[in-house]
Amino acid sequence: MALLETSKHCQGSVLGSVNPDLGSERQTASFCVERLTALLDGGAEQTRIRRAVVEAIESDPIFSRENQYFQTQNERYEAAVRKAVHLQKKMHEMGWTENGPEYKYIYRALSGDVAFLLHRVFMRSISVLGSDRQVAKWIPLATQHKLIGSYAQTELGHGTYLQGLETTAVFDTATQEFILNTPRISAMKWWPGDMGRSATHTVVFAQLYIHGKCYGIHPFIVQIRSLQDHSLCPGVTAGDIGPKMNFEHIDNGYLLLKNVHVPRENMLSKFCEVRPDGTYVRQGSQQINYFTMTSVRISLISDEVLTPLQKACTIAIRYSVVRRQSKLKPGEQEAKILDYQTQQEKLLPQLAAVYAFHFTNDYLQELFDKGYREIQRKNFDMLPELHALSSGFKAMITQHCTAGVEICLRACGGHGYSLLSGLPSLYTKILASCIYEGENTILLLQTARFLIKCFMAASAGQPVPPSVTYLAAVKHGKCPAKNKLDFLSPDIYTEAYQHVAVRLTSSTAAKLQDLIQSGVKKHDAWNQCTVQLVQAAKAHCHYIAVKNFAETVEKLETKAGIQKIMKHLCDLFALHGIFSNTGAFLHDGYTSAAQMDMVTAAYLDLLAVIRKDAVPLVDAFDFTDKSLNSALGSYDGQVYQRLYEWAQKSPTNQMSPAYERYLKPLLHNTLSKL
Amino acid sequence: MALLETSKHCQGSVLGSVNPDLGSERQTASFCVERLTALLDGGAEQTRIRRAVVEAIESDPIFSRENQYFQTQNERYEAAVRKAVHLQKKMHEMGWTENGPEYKYIYRALSGDVAFLLHRVFMRSISVLGSDRQVAKWIPLATQHKLIGSYAQTELGHGTYLQGLETTAVFDTATQEFILNTPRISAMKWWPGDMGRSATHTVVFAQLYIHGKCYGIHPFIVQIRSLQDHSLCPGVTAGDIGPKMNFEHIDNGYLLLKNVHVPRENMLSKFCEVRPDGTYVRQGSQQINYFTMTSVRISLISDEVLTPLQKACTIAIRYSVVRRQSKLKPGEQEAKILDYQTQQEKLLPQLAAVYAFHFTNDYLQELFDKGYREIQRKNFDMLPELHALSSGFKAMITQHCTAGVEICLRACGGHGYSLLSGLPSLYTKILASCIYEGENTILLLQTARFLIKCFMAASAGQPVPPSVTYLAAVKHGKCPAKNKLDFLSPDIYTEAYQHVAVRLTSSTAAKLQDLIQSGVKKHDAWNQCTVQLVQAAKAHCHYIAVKNFAETVEKLETKAGIQKIMKHLCDLFALHGIFSNTGAFLHDGYTSAAQMDMVTAAYLDLLAVIRKDAVPLVDAFDFTDKSLNSALGSYDGQVYQRLYEWAQKSPTNQMSPAYERYLKPLLHNTLSKL
Repeated sequence: MALLETSKHCQGSVLGSVNPDLGSERQTASFCVERLTALLDGGAEQTRIRRAVVEAIESDPIFSRENQYFQTQNERYEAAVRKAVHLQKKMHEMGWTENGPEYKYIYRALSGDVAFLLHRVFMRSISVLGSDRQVAKWIPLATQHKLIGSYAQTELGHGTYLQGLETTAVFDTATQEFILNTPRISAMKWWPGDMGRSATHTVVFAQLYIHGKCYGIHPFIVQIRSLQDHSLCPGVTAGDIGPKMNFEHIDNGYLLLKNVHVPRENMLSKFCEVRPDGTYVRQGSQQINYFTMTSVRISLISDEVLTPLQKACTIAIRYSVVRRQSKLKPGEQEAKILDYQTQQEKLLPQLAAVYAFHFTNDYLQELFDKGYREIQRKNFDMLPELHALSSGFKAMITQHCTAGVEICLRACGGHGYSLLSGLPSLYTKILASCIYEGENTILLLQTARFLIKCFMAASAGQPVPPSVTYLAAVKHGKCPAKNKLDFLSPDIYTEAYQHVAVRLTSSTAAKLQDLIQSGVKKHDAWNQCTVQLVQAAKAHCHYIAVKNFAETVEKLETKAGIQKIMKHLCDLFALHGIFSNTGAFLHDGYTSAAQMDMVTAAYLDLLAVIRKDAVPLVDAFDFTDKSLNSALGSYDGQVYQRLYEWAQKSPTNQMSPAYERYLKPLLHNTLSKL
Repeated sequence: MALLETSKHCQGSVLGSVNPDLGSERQTASFCVERLTALLDGGAEQTRIRRAVVEAIESDPIFSRENQYFQTQNERYEAAVRKAVHLQKKMHEMGWTENGPEYKYIYRALSGDVAFLLHRVFMRSISVLGSDRQVAKWIPLATQHKLIGSYAQTELGHGTYLQGLETTAVFDTATQEFILNTPRISAMKWWPGDMGRSATHTVVFAQLYIHGKCYGIHPFIVQIRSLQDHSLCPGVTAGDIGPKMNFEHIDNGYLLLKNVHVPRENMLSKFCEVRPDGTYVRQGSQQINYFTMTSVRISLISDEVLTPLQKACTIAIRYSVVRRQSKLKPGEQEAKILDYQTQQEKLLPQLAAVYAFHFTNDYLQELFDKGYREIQRKNFDMLPELHALSSGFKAMITQHCTAGVEICLRACGGHGYSLLSGLPSLYTKILASCIYEGENTILLLQTARFLIKCFMAASAGQPVPPSVTYLAAVKHGKCPAKNKLDFLSPDIYTEAYQHVAVRLTSSTAAKLQDLIQSGVKKHDAWNQCTVQLVQAAKAHCHYIAVKNFAETVEKLETKAGIQKIMKHLCDLFALHGIFSNTGAFLHDGYTSAAQMDMVTAAYLDLLAVIRKDAVPLVDAFDFTDKSLNSALGSYDGQVYQRLYEWAQKSPTNQMSPAYERYLKPLLHNTLSKL
């Protein structure tokens, strides 16, 4: 290959200098990239710690993901287990602890490509749901990896609706044991991570029966594999559920239980206990359970949802200044594809959204911390609002970011479709976030239920939580904007979003009441409003996201150009939402057609403004080449060389038996007939 | 497993009777399913032929796709080559010929999972672009598989913009040869199917140079591998481009050429010839080339785009009547998820769309046939319209159907995410259709260019092609609907779509003119309008699709309930488009807010109506279980058994070395410390 400098380690290697088409984009940044990185990290000290963790992980070849796109499901699983085991050693070596400041960066640095993630859920569920004695017994065993835990809730036939779970746990007073069964195929536990091949124990959720009476769903610690030779325990059938769209590294499993006995002490009993005589005792508040789901939904946003979209934006935007296609001006060289308005319109709103949601996440985290402090003081008042916001934003942000990653993928044309671009795996992974931890439509309907309740209360003059007080103040005005520049005023667009959220909530509440008053049964009426209820919930979340972004920008430091560029992104996020959803704003005439044309003009103008800072804005996410694992997204922009070098390493470039077996007979058979 | 009847061949086996939750859906069909199938096939005789082909293919184990989801890229490639070779034999046995009525069903019956598809493109390009002598030489060789052909146009750095291709072919009068080179890495041919490992020959597109002058892109037949031992020819470097999001069975390849010599006779010379002395002669019309692209874009719609969405709808709708989740009414059993309005709103519009596009495809095919007849009479007048429609519809239908498959996947929750559902591979494959044969945004802009041109002509009173005459008749009326039932009138909604298409085209044309008049250069002005031009092109296609569906329904037989159910689907297709895009209809007040509320009400009512026939409507697509290859979509609806039986066959359920290597030391190490 005289054509190019071939390097042995395409991913780690410096292939040469930075592609000048990419380099030039960095010359003209309107803000200080390093300072924006620090803002995103929560301070320069956090940036320093994060980089140290990334450096330590990425310099260790055991954590390499270089071959990931070439590996089978079995190879991925094995590598993930190896990494999980090695991580224990690494943490010890580095002096990292589970409570240290480095901990939260480890998972991100590994890009989640590690086993035993459910082991942590196993531990958390015991900590939250177990009695002090249970915590004292199991947590040290788990911490020291004397067992490997999983968490078995979802069944083949049952997901979100927990009351429908079919697994049973019957208490036998004679033996002081629970007898667990999955009585039908639909009751089989299905999906739990780490359970297909690794776990020795799991927390099983089952319907508790005592003396023939059902007490509902309770958690039980069940050993499923021998600690000596890993064989399945008596009565247990378990295995791997096979190939999925992503998560090849995780052994999502199935579990059948046939008369499996566990001692009475294995029911997690912080809140409910079964006494030796079969007496069922409920103790303490179960509201904390509710809080746990909230906590999980908020915590997944950052690592599982925002990071993938940040990576996708980085890859697609860097590629879009390196790729040249067609001529924008006659006689000139082919243009960078990011100079086309249509390409800007695909990518820049995704960039604005990922910044918007970064600040939404901060907002939720703060609210959550406040809620947690209140709960510790036995005040549960914030829970309904927290639940509604965490459900709605989990749904909205996963939905928006999944669509965003797909847009980035498509915007890279054919090369985006190659696994080596990194984009397909980002997409297939983030897609799952729309489904797990509560299916999005169901979550939005929970938010909507809260909204309708609060709207009714507010209409009746009753107090409502802070995030929904706006529902009380229904204004019937018109949007006051007079020209396109007015739409760069946060007051103008925030008010417009608020107006839409109120309108959709109030009109759906009215439809619901009308139906009920006309004699439709309550549950039927609710079902007939669900499409519109989902719209209302989305509008509510969108309003809060816009308002929060605008308020955040207001408070930013004005130095180093940070506030200015964030203001542009905030405007773009808001105007893109209006431009993509004009009907909601036009419907009752709050916004006129002439104003909508101003929105369009202001929105398209903004694209051209932000395009100039597009590369610095993705550079600020501070991803290393190894963490992007993408031939299109590397810092130096040497796209074509990377694609070529990397493709040559594919197992498909080793000799295939297909030639000897099929092609040679085909070609030679006919040749011999000549 | 006493729990369930285990069968050796999960896919082909009859696991038992039809799931009663699915069976009951078939009892109440409002129309004759068999008659609808015949309508879709184009007659009962076509249905018979299709079924015979499917039966012959599916009963042959070599064509089985049962293990597809478990196979590596190498295994998929090998199986596809084996199938391609076996297919020759099969066709001979069955008496099928390339011109016979069975031929078009073979590819569909194989679900495209076969090699040498580019061999056919190789042959077609020689037939279309080659001289009579070239056709006489190469076509028999290709037909008898004395060589395996590919088609090398796209380069690593160049796609849609053909003028930008960098590969060169320099004519050497001394040797009467062309010398081919890929002078830079970005000039490397990249993506051609069958080229990575199989092909012996390919048609290479290169810039022709004679005596230092460039004559633009021309096609050359180049041998790349030995016919004796398949080794690469001198000067040729070729291989596989590695893993992609799908198409694992295809060896998409790369090709580097370094001073590769081909004889003068190898330039395809139907339209252009290089004489021995280097004289360049252009002969005949090249417009037919243009027509070839049109032909490919139309032909891909049926097999590559509509079939996947039909399959996805079949899988998701059957699953949605088998899956029960939560209670719709207190005290009853859990409800079928298709009984939730939100689930209907996800799936039923996709069903309506796939029927709508089936008829759009008929319309395009008819127009194409007419155009072809005209061209044979040397009349090229229809070409611009055909090009605009085929470009716009290729983009619109691929976009719409890709989004539809994704919606179906997500609507199946966790199980949709399992490869065994069949949905992930349908999605990852159809996604490519948005990119290949012209990237969608670029195609829509070509349609828009035609629209603007015709709008200008029509405004000036000049004649325009039939599909755009409506642009001349700009009406400034209002939508006359008075209640929600009026929106079930095709005249009402077709007119509304027409109004929007005219408004978007005329307003964008006005913006373009304003910009140019204000001094902006023409190409800059165009770029600044492209986001809106894309909207106009989409609105035009959407209007034609709605109008054509309504006109088709009008002509259907009224017997057997066919017309009635198709009318419902037509209404749903039209109203879903309005409901999802209200701003376009509200913008200038053509539709009022009150009317939009009627649209919403009519739309939601229709969902409940069509829901009753949802299963019969997908049954009419007449997919066998083997062709769906889905644990969720089988005709008998035994979802959970299939998932369980199939998962157990996954290679991930064989012993993994991970236990001995990593888990055992981890667990025992710590156990030994006890």
